[in-house]
Amino acid sequence: MSIFNVELKKVVDDSYDIEVGYNLSDKLVEDIETALAGKIKKFAIITDSVVKDLYAEKIYNSLIMRGYKADLFVFPEGEKSKTRQTKAMIEDMMLDKGYRRDCMVIAVGGGVVTDISGFIAGTFGRGVPFVNYATTLLAAADASVGGKTAIDTPLATNLIGIFNQPKKVYIDIECWKTLPPRQLYSGMAETIKHAALADAEMFDFLFENMDKIYAGDREACEYIAARNCEIKYNVVMKDERESGLREILNLGHTVGRAIETCSDYRLLHGEAVAIGLVAQAKLSGKLGYMTDEEITRLSALINKANLPSAIPDYIDREVLVKKLYTDKKVRDGKLRFVIEKGIGDVVCFGENLYATEISEDIAREIIMSM
Amino acid sequence: MSIFNVELKKVVDDSYDIEVGYNLSDKLVEDIETALAGKIKKFAIITDSVVKDLYAEKIYNSLIMRGYKADLFVFPEGEKSKTRQTKAMIEDMMLDKGYRRDCMVIAVGGGVVTDISGFIAGTFGRGVPFVNYATTLLAAADASVGGKTAIDTPLATNLIGIFNQPKKVYIDIECWKTLPPRQLYSGMAETIKHAALADAEMFDFLFENMDKIYAGDREACEYIAARNCEIKYNVVMKDERESGLREILNLGHTVGRAIETCSDYRLLHGEAVAIGLVAQAKLSGKLGYMTDEEITRLSALINKANLPSAIPDYIDREVLVKKLYTDKKVRDGKLRFVIEKGIGDVVCFGENLYATEISEDIAREIIMSM
Repeated sequence: MSIFNVELKKVVDDSYDIEVGYNLSDKLVEDIETALAGKIKKFAIITDSVVKDLYAEKIYNSLIMRGYKADLFVFPEGEKSKTRQTKAMIEDMMLDKGYRRDCMVIAVGGGVVTDISGFIAGTFGRGVPFVNYATTLLAAADASVGGKTAIDTPLATNLIGIFNQPKKVYIDIECWKTLPPRQLYSGMAETIKHAALADAEMFDFLFENMDKIYAGDREACEYIAARNCEIKYNVVMKDERESGLREILNLGHTVGRAIETCSDYRLLHGEAVAIGLVAQAKLSGKLGYMTDEEITRLSALINKANLPSAIPDYIDREVLVKKLYTDKKVRDGKLRFVIEKGIGDVVCFGENLYATEISEDIAREIIMSM
Repeated sequence: MSIFNVELKKVVDDSYDIEVGYNLSDKLVEDIETALAGKIKKFAIITDSVVKDLYAEKIYNSLIMRGYKADLFVFPEGEKSKTRQTKAMIEDMMLDKGYRRDCMVIAVGGGVVTDISGFIAGTFGRGVPFVNYATTLLAAADASVGGKTAIDTPLATNLIGIFNQPKKVYIDIECWKTLPPRQLYSGMAETIKHAALADAEMFDFLFENMDKIYAGDREACEYIAARNCEIKYNVVMKDERESGLREILNLGHTVGRAIETCSDYRLLHGEAVAIGLVAQAKLSGKLGYMTDEEITRLSALINKANLPSAIPDYIDREVLVKKLYTDKKVRDGKLRFVIEKGIGDVVCFGENLYATEISEDIAREIIMSM
């Protein structure tokens, strides 16, 4: 018998920049021409059927004009595309077009595009670099920090994926103007979540400026884009592998993701999260951590953002309760929830412990009341 | 416009032990009871249809007896199973049986099992820990160091995967005795590769002791198991991301993998690599880096190991030449090969450059001559 020690200790630097601004596609191509892509000359642009015409083709044309090899890999718009099948289809198209390990992936789109593209980049040839060009408010709030990439499966959302950091993220606020209103509202849910869990001041700002943001006011939009990154970064930096603190980012998502799945994606991700935020506020109230007034104020902000705060009638409540068990936080078959402490804070249940066990009966009671 | 820097620099320690010995399943369970698995109580044992009865069930029973949750996830034996479909099937079974992020994967089997299991573990819930229990010589030589995990796709082998380090590797030499002879021989190809690229002394040892190894001589088997780890570790440690030096481990694989695919897996991986080693020796000779005598000696060792040294007649040579372009080392559409320098060394073509461009004509000439 012998033991051989494989010593693999090293310093890893995954740092990157997030650039927030207007019309950043020229900047992206400029960055590629200078240092961002190193010696790489081949760019796989992954996008969806809607964003392709709006933004991705422009980036494609710029790269081709500058003599790079580039191709557009397009899948149908929507959460329903975030599947193993879409990942396999794009990988096979990339292989077929001669892409190997010497390429870079450019994800152009919202959260679905950046989630699946980061996963594809991370497993293509065991990892090629990628950048995110975020065109939605949701991607700006949720997908630009944290390195989470994933696809959905019939049995659970976001459970198959990897942590993979982009080389750079572009948040193009100009793109928000072309978002269908429902998509813009949906993206606001993650912004409200950030305010609810970490920043009472931002919460007040949203309450007072929602109309300005939706009208495209430059200052207000830049403020929330930047503040979203800061809040998420402060959480993620302290807990990159989601072992404790990072669970607070699941606020509204335990119920929200289950609602999203049960709605068979008739609800957008943000719409489901908005309802989930209200559900988890009610749960927080039930445990004595939120006043009725605070719950009402959260509900009011969600409605101000043109988001739903009640579970649609067509969703079977019992199926929804069962679906909660597919959540990543479930341990030993027990439901676990992040609990809000008033507005702008969450409850810490012990060292590095930000989610608490909740009985199925209590979860059911909250769901039945909505 | 604003730029936000996401600072993500950190020290990562992926170090782990490889334990080489006989009948190590009790040791694995003992390790799990002490520190290896931390607080984890759920174990997904991934194995193939042959290894299940031989070894995996024993580990399963031991874990169940000790009060752990454990399940066997079994797929049909063979390289043909190393697919996206198998990965998806096992993931869905794991989800269905309630596995979430609080589990550990135990891979029990040869290289196919450890390759696919490491990939599954790395993407399940964005990464759960795993251990490899290697039951074949091939897994001992190839899969225990380096962290490479992958599946095959119709268009290329091993191109979709991740780097993922196990928590521990067990090399159970006792298992080699139950290997079908053809599998044992196949595993020897990677051992010969290691000797050919890094260790003339080991090459001589293999030449003199092949019969003893195949007869299960304890000292000889332990020597090659340990030496394989050392050689691979010395290469991998210096280049974990396969940016330069690590390419030398592709010796024999550029042609070998193409042959494997063209044979539609009638040839085992090691058999194809053996032929590839001869092809790349001939190429090295053509470039003046190996003498005819050295090429003959390599060929002789391969035959001594009961491995093939010629391309089977049923393989279309032109299809094979085209298939070379699916190799990961291809850059800008040009074929690149690792070149041997005599026996026990490879050619360095410049700083961190261990593969050189070879024209399709020369590659074709070598292939036509075999």
